[in-house]
Amino acid sequence: MAQSASSSAAGCLAVVLAAGEGTRMRSNRPKVLHEIAGASMLSHVLRAVGAAGADRLAVVIGPDRADVECAARAVAADAEIVVQGDRLGTAHAVLRARAALERGPEAVIIAFADTPLVRPETFARLLAPLREGAAVSVLGFEAAVPTGYGRLVREGGQLVAIREERDGSDEERAITLCNAGLMGLRGDVALALLDQVQNHNAKGEYYLTDVVEIARAAGHSVAVVTAPEEEVQGVNDRAQLAGAERSIQERLRRAAMANGATLVAPETVFLAHDTRIGRDVVIEPNVIFGPGVVVEDGAVIHAFSHLEGARVGPKASVGPFARLRPGTVLGPKAKVGNFVETKNADVGAGAKVNHLTYIGDATIGADANIGAGTITCNYDGFFKYRTEIGAGAFVGSNSALIAPVRIGEGAYVGSGSVITDDVPADALAVARGRQAVKDGWAAAFRADAQARKAKT
Amino acid sequence: MAQSASSSAAGCLAVVLAAGEGTRMRSNRPKVLHEIAGASMLSHVLRAVGAAGADRLAVVIGPDRADVECAARAVAADAEIVVQGDRLGTAHAVLRARAALERGPEAVIIAFADTPLVRPETFARLLAPLREGAAVSVLGFEAAVPTGYGRLVREGGQLVAIREERDGSDEERAITLCNAGLMGLRGDVALALLDQVQNHNAKGEYYLTDVVEIARAAGHSVAVVTAPEEEVQGVNDRAQLAGAERSIQERLRRAAMANGATLVAPETVFLAHDTRIGRDVVIEPNVIFGPGVVVEDGAVIHAFSHLEGARVGPKASVGPFARLRPGTVLGPKAKVGNFVETKNADVGAGAKVNHLTYIGDATIGADANIGAGTITCNYDGFFKYRTEIGAGAFVGSNSALIAPVRIGEGAYVGSGSVITDDVPADALAVARGRQAVKDGWAAAFRADAQARKAKT
Amino acid sequence: MAQSASSSAAGCLAVVLAAGEGTRMRSNRPKVLHEIAGASMLSHVLRAVGAAGADRLAVVIGPDRADVECAARAVAADAEIVVQGDRLGTAHAVLRARAALERGPEAVIIAFADTPLVRPETFARLLAPLREGAAVSVLGFEAAVPTGYGRLVREGGQLVAIREERDGSDEERAITLCNAGLMGLRGDVALALLDQVQNHNAKGEYYLTDVVEIARAAGHSVAVVTAPEEEVQGVNDRAQLAGAERSIQERLRRAAMANGATLVAPETVFLAHDTRIGRDVVIEPNVIFGPGVVVEDGAVIHAFSHLEGARVGPKASVGPFARLRPGTVLGPKAKVGNFVETKNADVGAGAKVNHLTYIGDATIGADANIGAGTITCNYDGFFKYRTEIGAGAFVGSNSALIAPVRIGEGAYVGSGSVITDDVPADALAVARGRQAVKDGWAAAFRADAQARKAKT
Repeated sequence: MAQSASSSAAGCLAVVLAAGEGTRMRSNRPKVLHEIAGASMLSHVLRAVGAAGADRLAVVIGPDRADVECAARAVAADAEIVVQGDRLGTAHAVLRARAALERGPEAVIIAFADTPLVRPETFARLLAPLREGAAVSVLGFEAAVPTGYGRLVREGGQLVAIREERDGSDEERAITLCNAGLMGLRGDVALALLDQVQNHNAKGEYYLTDVVEIARAAGHSVAVVTAPEEEVQGVNDRAQLAGAERSIQERLRRAAMANGATLVAPETVFLAHDTRIGRDVVIEPNVIFGPGVVVEDGAVIHAFSHLEGARVGPKASVGPFARLRPGTVLGPKAKVGNFVETKNADVGAGAKVNHLTYIGDATIGADANIGAGTITCNYDGFFKYRTEIGAGAFVGSNSALIAPVRIGEGAYVGSGSVITDDVPADALAVARGRQAVKDGWAAAFRADAQARKAKT
Repeated sequence: MAQSASSSAAGCLAVVLAAGEGTRMRSNRPKVLHEIAGASMLSHVLRAVGAAGADRLAVVIGPDRADVECAARAVAADAEIVVQGDRLGTAHAVLRARAALERGPEAVIIAFADTPLVRPETFARLLAPLREGAAVSVLGFEAAVPTGYGRLVREGGQLVAIREERDGSDEERAITLCNAGLMGLRGDVALALLDQVQNHNAKGEYYLTDVVEIARAAGHSVAVVTAPEEEVQGVNDRAQLAGAERSIQERLRRAAMANGATLVAPETVFLAHDTRIGRDVVIEPNVIFGPGVVVEDGAVIHAFSHLEGARVGPKASVGPFARLRPGTVLGPKAKVGNFVETKNADVGAGAKVNHLTYIGDATIGADANIGAGTITCNYDGFFKYRTEIGAGAFVGSNSALIAPVRIGEGAYVGSGSVITDDVPADALAVARGRQAVKDGWAAAFRADAQARKAKT
Repeated sequence: MAQSASSSAAGCLAVVLAAGEGTRMRSNRPKVLHEIAGASMLSHVLRAVGAAGADRLAVVIGPDRADVECAARAVAADAEIVVQGDRLGTAHAVLRARAALERGPEAVIIAFADTPLVRPETFARLLAPLREGAAVSVLGFEAAVPTGYGRLVREGGQLVAIREERDGSDEERAITLCNAGLMGLRGDVALALLDQVQNHNAKGEYYLTDVVEIARAAGHSVAVVTAPEEEVQGVNDRAQLAGAERSIQERLRRAAMANGATLVAPETVFLAHDTRIGRDVVIEPNVIFGPGVVVEDGAVIHAFSHLEGARVGPKASVGPFARLRPGTVLGPKAKVGNFVETKNADVGAGAKVNHLTYIGDATIGADANIGAGTITCNYDGFFKYRTEIGAGAFVGSNSALIAPVRIGEGAYVGSGSVITDDVPADALAVARGRQAVKDGWAAAFRADAQARKAKT
């Protein structure tokens, strides 16, 4: 288990709890690696605390979870990964990051990898009271139905306790401000407060929420910061995962529209966390974006399109029924039409790939026209090869281009050809059989087939 | 009109009323044959009463409705089909099943084929009070807007009357518990009660609801059983049909998620009544399941896929933009990609059919690789023929395999070939034209075409 | 700027305000040209006022907006287009149409091109009070949240004032009947009322709403007509544009269902303003209609289909995954299947184009069968040519038909052929390479490739 070697004392530490087993997910995959908007819940939380200003990360994972460690490192290479062996409660989990806490951060954020919708601004707001002297800040939300949540009991603006449902008075149970679980701790007192948490309760666990009363008892002030309920929803089963996906999609769609894109039917467009959509882009219904897509100004993504790892140039046109796979770059006004798949493909300005085509590992020059049913044969079962098609070339329909191969600028490939050798610029290449006709054959065949069919 | 020949006295009889004309559907098809979740409303009801324990079925249909009879028999081969000629009310309809009623069932369920969402558990709950002595049990629901429904008037836990809107006092109209129409009757009194129903009312019809007061007058107890309003919604027009579809889809989606599948956007996934989805299956947005699909653990169904009558093996990958038609079986880790159609196709473990391909009436061996644009030519206009592709074979892109044909294990088909004869194992087969090049042809053609175009 | 030359005094004039800049759309396109249901907002309003009985149209546009003028003329060729140079308020805008107002229409409707959901019936209802003597009629709506809207202050059934939020008393702010902006004016007083509007207000603008108090002061009666809030929603940003799309789609879907079509999942079907759907048509989930589509009785549009400018004959079958482009006409019981694109294509009765095919600029005779992967090669980079396929012909899979070309009636094209010359009726044409086999080649290739791969 690698550890980052930061030794400077200042900064903000985020401790991200990612050890939950997620039994209710009924999955072989650890809960925090389930994805929303094309990225794991863990990565959403790591990015959010980073954006909120946490410059050190400690991620608490379950034992033998190299997959979770690997996912954490993919987002935050220098995160400190610590393992929680026994599951003895949230405070116990946070204390697995003792080494990082001992390095004396200015502030500590405690976040949950299965609560993926918390905005960076919200984490930042947790930090503000700590700078103003509070020892602890707790994230609360106004619950539509508070039953089951811990209630935040306040006196004079200060939080005095987090009361569990079963322990509350009738008056306390009437409180609708509930505990979201997330917390901020002032760095100079964080470890001392955490170390005082006891496990004198029914389950014998160390609860993070106890920190509130410990801090109060020590004369510290404890602040409450609130967020909308939608933002603090945890994910414990597949239905909640779908709910989190819905929430994040609504955010992403609203942002795209506010930025000047038309989403004809926003509820049918699925964006990735990092999709970038320009101004005056039109996105028709039923379009799906995997990670890594950029759509530049004025492009149109027609219905039933699927894009991943692709850049769509200004005023380019995609779909309907197009699939752009990673490594696709469409130049300005390029056009990729229906039932077309592209991968590792550079399609030049104004080039057209309109119908029923596979373009893989290829470069297509500006204004080239690729006929319907063209296939770049880029794979021999072992290696992949490139196809290069020059500017202004015309590839006739139903052609197979057997890579490695070059079609020169302005060259012409006759329809139905199988091109194995390079075609010079401005030349014509044809590679197909000659047409033979047998008069009357079809009539005779039909008569015979009908007779055979009648017997069956 | 065939009749089942059951002569044993015991058991539960379900009388399913399926004679409604459904004028408001504005359809040439009888109402009860309109479908939700890939099966007719009638079949949903027949399956539900069967699952609730009804071991005999009588289906009351309209005259000259061989299509309805046929649909009933497809689900319940030994159902008794009876015809209601004149439309003289619901009690009159039930009495068309007089022969079945006379055989002395222990209990009778009366169900409506245009109320397709009633769960088996709900039918079962209608039966329970009958076993405890009630003569009649009535299904009620708490109506959000009770206007127009018959109200269930109770005294001391017993139902005393079903009061129609127009006949009710102000107090009775304030009742929100309404009559769903479904009913249970104790077998030993069912016929006697039904025979006492009169048609002394404005329309001159025999109303099943009158059974309640008849039973009460005879000193019998009448029970009420309740179900959610959503479950007892009838379907009378296309908008209500769409509403029933929405309800059943929500049930199916929730069940799939509870079982450990991820539905990224559940509202965009359409399941059939019999779809079986394994654990850790991921279903991306916009996937449609026709009847007869099984998806095994760990498989991924990518966006824009359409499956019917297909089995997807463990960890197999389908789509995006794939269509699996009936008779498709994908082995473990097999992969069917974009713009691919399969039908009567056995795709072996680890085999790949990734792009723009039609595989019909074919067997593909393990780990074979089928190139983009491959077509199995399985049809000559009269007969269908099979293609067999051996394990580890490699079929180059844009090839046509003219069935009947066999590609041997480990064989290699050159891209763009039209294969008419069997290919031995480990051999190469190529069938395509030779490439010819005419230098400068394209430049000359372009000059000429531009000149012609300028004239138009 | 052209003007219509109507000189008759009678009739109803609609003044459509279409000069708004729409800054919040963040678009280079003028706001009123953004589309819902496949047509610009402007065209929706122009059609609605026309259907309500307006026989003269004046469209007030911004300066240098030839695109808006052109869009207006496309719907209403004889509309009078007037330009509002300075933006001095709504009354000022209406007065740009002074020439039309001076011609003495019987009634004047004032409509807004960015309020595209107002029904013709609603415009017609604005006219009714004018015929009964009112000088002015104002469209109001019951606002769910009235904050920010002008309130309609009534006394004895008459409108006495439109009170802006900031100017209202507490009592007036409690009014929920709000001003939708649309207005009717009696033709004989319209110009006089408008000319009395002053700009003595904070912004120095001429407000159309002032007409109400001016009319009252002159002793005229002012009527209020109401419409649902959904109908009078204006569009100022992309989110509101999406909201308007949602509203209009719901209307179109409800109408299609009421007319006897099954929409399995209505919320996934996107119709154009002019889509015509017959009786007993079934539309599966995820179908998109561009403008100009007619679907005749009993046809089935399977999932994931995209239609535009196409006619689908009775009992024809489309999709799944089909794209019908403009000029497609499918005969009765014709079938266009998956991954098929058609354009300018006449597909005869009972003909089948089932898989992975491009049919462009073609005629296909009745009962012809077009094999999977067929491409009509209709374009040489400069001109388009037609393909004609006779009745009962059979085109084998993966064929390329190089237009101009005719396949005779009952002719047969061998799979994988490239057809360059006409094929006589009842003949067989084959144009493909001969198959060559090299025994053991694949095994040797594999061994070599594996060795090379091991080195990389």
